[in-house]
Amino acid sequence: MILHIVPTPDPTLLGELRDHYGAVGFVTDDHHVLVLSSKVRAIEDRFLPIVQEQFVLDDDIQLASTRYRSKKREVRIGNIVIGGETRNTAFIAGPCSVESRAQIETVCERLVKEEIRVLRAGAFKPRTSPYVFQGLGHDGLQLLAEMRQKYGLAIVTEVRDATHVDAVIEVADVVQIGAKAMYDHGILRACGKSRKAVLLKRGFGSTVQELVQAAEFMLSAGNENVILCERGIRTFETKTRFTLDLCGVAYLKQHTNLPVVVDTSHAMGYRYGVPDLTRAATAMGVDGLLIESHPTPDQALSDAAQQIDLDTLSELVASVRKVAKAVDRKIV
Amino acid sequence: MILHIVPTPDPTLLGELRDHYGAVGFVTDDHHVLVLSSKVRAIEDRFLPIVQEQFVLDDDIQLASTRYRSKKREVRIGNIVIGGETRNTAFIAGPCSVESRAQIETVCERLVKEEIRVLRAGAFKPRTSPYVFQGLGHDGLQLLAEMRQKYGLAIVTEVRDATHVDAVIEVADVVQIGAKAMYDHGILRACGKSRKAVLLKRGFGSTVQELVQAAEFMLSAGNENVILCERGIRTFETKTRFTLDLCGVAYLKQHTNLPVVVDTSHAMGYRYGVPDLTRAATAMGVDGLLIESHPTPDQALSDAAQQIDLDTLSELVASVRKVAKAVDRKIV
Amino acid sequence: MILHIVPTPDPTLLGELRDHYGAVGFVTDDHHVLVLSSKVRAIEDRFLPIVQEQFVLDDDIQLASTRYRSKKREVRIGNIVIGGETRNTAFIAGPCSVESRAQIETVCERLVKEEIRVLRAGAFKPRTSPYVFQGLGHDGLQLLAEMRQKYGLAIVTEVRDATHVDAVIEVADVVQIGAKAMYDHGILRACGKSRKAVLLKRGFGSTVQELVQAAEFMLSAGNENVILCERGIRTFETKTRFTLDLCGVAYLKQHTNLPVVVDTSHAMGYRYGVPDLTRAATAMGVDGLLIESHPTPDQALSDAAQQIDLDTLSELVASVRKVAKAVDRKIV
Amino acid sequence: MILHIVPTPDPTLLGELRDHYGAVGFVTDDHHVLVLSSKVRAIEDRFLPIVQEQFVLDDDIQLASTRYRSKKREVRIGNIVIGGETRNTAFIAGPCSVESRAQIETVCERLVKEEIRVLRAGAFKPRTSPYVFQGLGHDGLQLLAEMRQKYGLAIVTEVRDATHVDAVIEVADVVQIGAKAMYDHGILRACGKSRKAVLLKRGFGSTVQELVQAAEFMLSAGNENVILCERGIRTFETKTRFTLDLCGVAYLKQHTNLPVVVDTSHAMGYRYGVPDLTRAATAMGVDGLLIESHPTPDQALSDAAQQIDLDTLSELVASVRKVAKAVDRKIV
Repeated sequence: MILHIVPTPDPTLLGELRDHYGAVGFVTDDHHVLVLSSKVRAIEDRFLPIVQEQFVLDDDIQLASTRYRSKKREVRIGNIVIGGETRNTAFIAGPCSVESRAQIETVCERLVKEEIRVLRAGAFKPRTSPYVFQGLGHDGLQLLAEMRQKYGLAIVTEVRDATHVDAVIEVADVVQIGAKAMYDHGILRACGKSRKAVLLKRGFGSTVQELVQAAEFMLSAGNENVILCERGIRTFETKTRFTLDLCGVAYLKQHTNLPVVVDTSHAMGYRYGVPDLTRAATAMGVDGLLIESHPTPDQALSDAAQQIDLDTLSELVASVRKVAKAVDRKIV
Repeated sequence: MILHIVPTPDPTLLGELRDHYGAVGFVTDDHHVLVLSSKVRAIEDRFLPIVQEQFVLDDDIQLASTRYRSKKREVRIGNIVIGGETRNTAFIAGPCSVESRAQIETVCERLVKEEIRVLRAGAFKPRTSPYVFQGLGHDGLQLLAEMRQKYGLAIVTEVRDATHVDAVIEVADVVQIGAKAMYDHGILRACGKSRKAVLLKRGFGSTVQELVQAAEFMLSAGNENVILCERGIRTFETKTRFTLDLCGVAYLKQHTNLPVVVDTSHAMGYRYGVPDLTRAATAMGVDGLLIESHPTPDQALSDAAQQIDLDTLSELVASVRKVAKAVDRKIV
Repeated sequence: MILHIVPTPDPTLLGELRDHYGAVGFVTDDHHVLVLSSKVRAIEDRFLPIVQEQFVLDDDIQLASTRYRSKKREVRIGNIVIGGETRNTAFIAGPCSVESRAQIETVCERLVKEEIRVLRAGAFKPRTSPYVFQGLGHDGLQLLAEMRQKYGLAIVTEVRDATHVDAVIEVADVVQIGAKAMYDHGILRACGKSRKAVLLKRGFGSTVQELVQAAEFMLSAGNENVILCERGIRTFETKTRFTLDLCGVAYLKQHTNLPVVVDTSHAMGYRYGVPDLTRAATAMGVDGLLIESHPTPDQALSDAAQQIDLDTLSELVASVRKVAKAVDRKIV
Repeated sequence: MILHIVPTPDPTLLGELRDHYGAVGFVTDDHHVLVLSSKVRAIEDRFLPIVQEQFVLDDDIQLASTRYRSKKREVRIGNIVIGGETRNTAFIAGPCSVESRAQIETVCERLVKEEIRVLRAGAFKPRTSPYVFQGLGHDGLQLLAEMRQKYGLAIVTEVRDATHVDAVIEVADVVQIGAKAMYDHGILRACGKSRKAVLLKRGFGSTVQELVQAAEFMLSAGNENVILCERGIRTFETKTRFTLDLCGVAYLKQHTNLPVVVDTSHAMGYRYGVPDLTRAATAMGVDGLLIESHPTPDQALSDAAQQIDLDTLSELVASVRKVAKAVDRKIV
């Protein structure tokens, strides 16, 4: 249950209300918003004087629900805006990991040439094995900050765990919470306190419901700039790395007010399928596309099999612009 | 291992070869084709005189493999052709079940109006429960035969089990083997003996490898007119009925020489997601689309939630034509 | 909804009732049993005179539900009985496929020695690939009939498709419907008409609900001798062949009145895990165990990796008797 | 590849070796252990003088592999020891969350009465929704410390994220890393530096391979006291909360040298199945059992459906002792 509180409520009553229901919430420009468990279907009469509006929701998808707020939220990524009524689809590309200045500059130059305005690259890599490349860490973050300065690109980069979340929030335009960190409460709390845009990836073993509930941790702390990302779920099929869940994307588009981005590279795991799947996601009218691309994919220090080379990237963005146009959207 | 035999082989040696390796096979216009287990990597020297060409394959995807035959096969559906170099995408639509003459005629009229040339509708329904509508059976089949006559539509209809497979083969333009029957050897054998086009749906618990292996049962019996169909697999996600596996479609396009069709209705299970997913599949360049549509979906005797009404169908086919054009394909 | 009809109902009214609700059913020694869709929550008053008892069930698990009949059903397998109040656990063992007289006799001798009374072995193998051993077919069935005669063993053997179901029903003591055939309506109808015991395996992509619904096809045709079998489901885990779902077994034990058997060989796919898993299933108090065992597993023509040799079988049955005793059950 | 270094290596060469291969490692009482990526199959000759022993492993399951160290590791939990050659199975029980002093004392009294020596209870709860009880946090941790003092129980409690990991390490006898935190590098690093016993739960979307790889992060940092825990994976089956993967347990027992514990409560999600599944896990010969139990389960603030009451707990531990004895193990 979501409550919009009157502009100047009795503070004692407000405190009692909050405590009585274990409510969480935040303050907007003009009023408090409190969220109670969805199991609460009505509040006690004594609290009614300080309540301006009530929204009873079915489950703990509350602030993100189209039944609370039907209009899709806008989120800014550097100079571009997605969501709302923009009909924009952000094309976000770059290597899995920042590996060196030369590597990342080569990518940035191509992005600029193709009028792609958002760079994605990881500095803190959440690897499955301790015995492989773990990312450049703070040095990688520093390189990304320089790239923004030099090329005017917005930066999407990942936070691996709570110990360096503040550093990532400071540098990134969009903080990426990776699939393995979707439930990391240390990260969710830090991002909730910030107002920085967050790209929240769905855990590969998590339902769309749980993805949105993780977003609610940040929304209910007052950070409205949350983007959801589908990147493939784990199924019994082993010929591809994961299974891209576009049915889930259809669900998110219908039932939530958050922008939705699709990462086809991780879903497929093999570069040959990335262009077709990216065109598919575009035709669905999603708010963004996340594509791994590397100057020399076979030499990449992580995710080598799935990264496309820069010429393929150029062809892809061209064909994606045509598909976007066919569904009355624009690639930005 | 696939062997192309010389035009007039010594019949005794051919018989020995067949027995020695437990080979299966068929005769084309000009030569025998034999398929041996993929574990056989070389044949004995004594058989070489009757072998014209050999193809060693990695696993038991053999006749369907692009490594055996890189060019995509053509399959005819009534008056249209898909696959090969056609760049055609067949739009196949109709109700889950034939329910009555009035119902099916209403659908046919709309298909004709929208220049859709293939009708899909089930007469033998493979239901999960014995206590619900099981289809009109042979009466339904008869109605479909009349519709073809009256409206000039090609007919895709499902065979539920081996006991009525011959009747379906006789009436249908394309025999649909449903997801639950993908492994039915009685059906696969009957369809293998026939030369009728077959639309083989992937079992919701089956890998793409197994789907293609089921196709191999028919291909190796000499029926080359096999179309694969992705219709959603079963995963942990429960907000949608199944999970449409477009990564699997990318795999099939890359690694097999069979046309691939996508059924978005069963995958999604809810009509709101069908148009977006159908546009997505189109943008991937698939060879066909299978859409459940009903004059009054809420009254449908099966799959009510996922069927779209006829006006939505009209809008969908229009938008799909635009997406197809953007990827240089044509809706037929 | 299940209806018990009065002993001598008005036949016209009975016919009307059946038609009005599309009911299916059968006749017991003393009355008709009709089953209506679970969506029917009450019948019209005019039919009440011929109804003796009504059972409103939540979903289409009806005849198998403990809410219809709380006592577990008894099923006879040759000379032994499982289910009911017996606390018996049948130990059922034998090779994946009958391969030769010598092979099957060697197995039978060991079974007799270990006081195992039920032989399982396949004649019609539902293989995934057309290019491997497909079973001995009718010759295999004949060998099994001889083994019963010679060794006094009960025979469990599989029907692959509807084209040979009558032959299998004639020879077997228990007709096994394999995982891939769980939905085969041709088989389900033939087994429903028979009174032969049926061991229905869960499809590896099927829910426990669907397994029980498939059993309802036979129960509602009047065959009460249905045994459910869990044999592993397909999940994302690839280190083992399937994932044995003992949570599902706990569900079936709690919510259905049918005996439950567990096949640990197919679930694990590797012989090293079979003994531990078999002891686990035994400790749950299941009604039977299905174990693949072969004189020389590495030479087996099918499922070589998962079959245990005969000495391991002897050790296993001994340890399983101890575990059964610890939970107050008896291996038969 | 694992290298055991000679007792007093040339430090410069050791440093070069470490840098050249990006090796990680730790120091035992008498020598350095370095682990290189499993892709390294041989080291350069110049490093051989400082290498005492080499172990080439197939993949990045290295320190945990039975091919490196075949003997199962021992881990101490308070006064008891599991693993090694003990044949002990630890019975670990307690409520999902510490809710109040009264609640936790009631549980402790029962544990003492039943000679159960390890209490599990959560203070920091990793909930899926922000709008429900999140645990008592540091106050809960303090209560657990008091319970150990008063009742002599060893304490297993969960760390939710990296921000409070040091507090949990200080209080717990065993630090539980929950399923959602299996990949949390902040936690893994902190636990790797510690020598405190760690119970690492398998993520419900993670393979057994990935579970062991997460353990390798701690093992390779020098903490050998790692226990693996299977607690159910996510599958398409929805009648139970998760699917307990005992095939995976069989794999872990065969291929790793780490003790394995099974949590049947989370897997099942419904209390009716917990006793049967716990007996099943016991019969497999696992090293521990994790059971959620609460004085009044229906009033529990978290996981109400799956907790068993204390009388059921008493019956369960009695029956589990019998099963353990039947497989020649002892409940401790």
